[in-house]
Amino acid sequence: MMVVTHRSSVQTRGQGDAHDLTERLTTAVRETGVANGTATVFVVGSTAAVTTIEFEPGAIADLNRMFEAIAPRDAEYRHHLRWGDDNGSSHVRAALLGPSLTVPVVAGTLTLGEWQQIMLLEFDTRARRREIVIQVVGE
Amino acid sequence: MMVVTHRSSVQTRGQGDAHDLTERLTTAVRETGVANGTATVFVVGSTAAVTTIEFEPGAIADLNRMFEAIAPRDAEYRHHLRWGDDNGSSHVRAALLGPSLTVPVVAGTLTLGEWQQIMLLEFDTRARRREIVIQVVGE
Amino acid sequence: MMVVTHRSSVQTRGQGDAHDLTERLTTAVRETGVANGTATVFVVGSTAAVTTIEFEPGAIADLNRMFEAIAPRDAEYRHHLRWGDDNGSSHVRAALLGPSLTVPVVAGTLTLGEWQQIMLLEFDTRARRREIVIQVVGE
Repeated sequence: MMVVTHRSSVQTRGQGDAHDLTERLTTAVRETGVANGTATVFVVGSTAAVTTIEFEPGAIADLNRMFEAIAPRDAEYRHHLRWGDDNGSSHVRAALLGPSLTVPVVAGTLTLGEWQQIMLLEFDTRARRREIVIQVVGE
Repeated sequence: MMVVTHRSSVQTRGQGDAHDLTERLTTAVRETGVANGTATVFVVGSTAAVTTIEFEPGAIADLNRMFEAIAPRDAEYRHHLRWGDDNGSSHVRAALLGPSLTVPVVAGTLTLGEWQQIMLLEFDTRARRREIVIQVVGE
Repeated sequence: MMVVTHRSSVQTRGQGDAHDLTERLTTAVRETGVANGTATVFVVGSTAAVTTIEFEPGAIADLNRMFEAIAPRDAEYRHHLRWGDDNGSSHVRAALLGPSLTVPVVAGTLTLGEWQQIMLLEFDTRARRREIVIQVVGE
């Protein structure tokens, strides 16, 4: 059994910007030599999140439209009153979607579907450099 | 320390169809002989998801009604324009709820509450055979 | 490699009450002596959930307002018809947000951001004592 950490970063372009992390994760898992275990993807920070999706522009736009409906960017947020920030919608969306995803690794491969990619979704209202931690635990 | 993978499938009946995976997970954990560790449940594909709920028809209907309100099945989705699909709502709902759940295993038992079951929720607009991966890591 | 379980409880004050679990988790991880691995936080029960957020009253109020919009406390729920309960909104919100969160542990430290805390969010309509299970797996 071993634990291997892979750290990297992603430059985003602000709210709604999506990045496909699948290849990064696949490569990280392969490099560990772990055959069986789990890979946890974690984004550092409270205004971005990780999930899986069929990574094509239509589905990503649809997801962002849903977030805009339930946590509109231009609504009033109590968080804004505290710091003078404009990213209350970012915090609500990120807390809802969550920063962490754990995927099984079986025979050296992530058990993703063919049309299922791992996505980083930026919610902040400005461009950010995002730190991604991939933790592989296995044998 | 060991890693044991349990694979199985579930036949679903389309959007909103819920399946209780608790017994399957309990049995899988028991068969591994793992006393302490974690069990990760993962559904392969981008139009289904996993969470916990009090598994009774009322609560499941209430959850589905909320999803219908925030991502209506019959709304227009950009994903439909790409493939001629009709399951844009499925992708939005599944990305939001997520494909993965990790539950502690303590003394051979999942730390679920008495009224807390592990649920597979189908979001696709048609019946699907769903592949479930249970990854148990522990000692 | 080892697995260490940390159990504790939190007394909540009903729907919308938020608790910062970060220090509890940090201490639990430190006491295990695990340098590298994962920490899974799990709340027992189907009407509370765990996520990360910038733990300040404004952001928490904003998140609760979003939940009130998509699953209003005073709406009619089919779950109420079953048990005479009044917590249909609690079940919907908790199933959506989820009971589990896994965070990498690297060099003895959780890889959280400076403004990213681990939060227990109570959704039930009454005060509850919540059991929290922290499962640390690593070396």
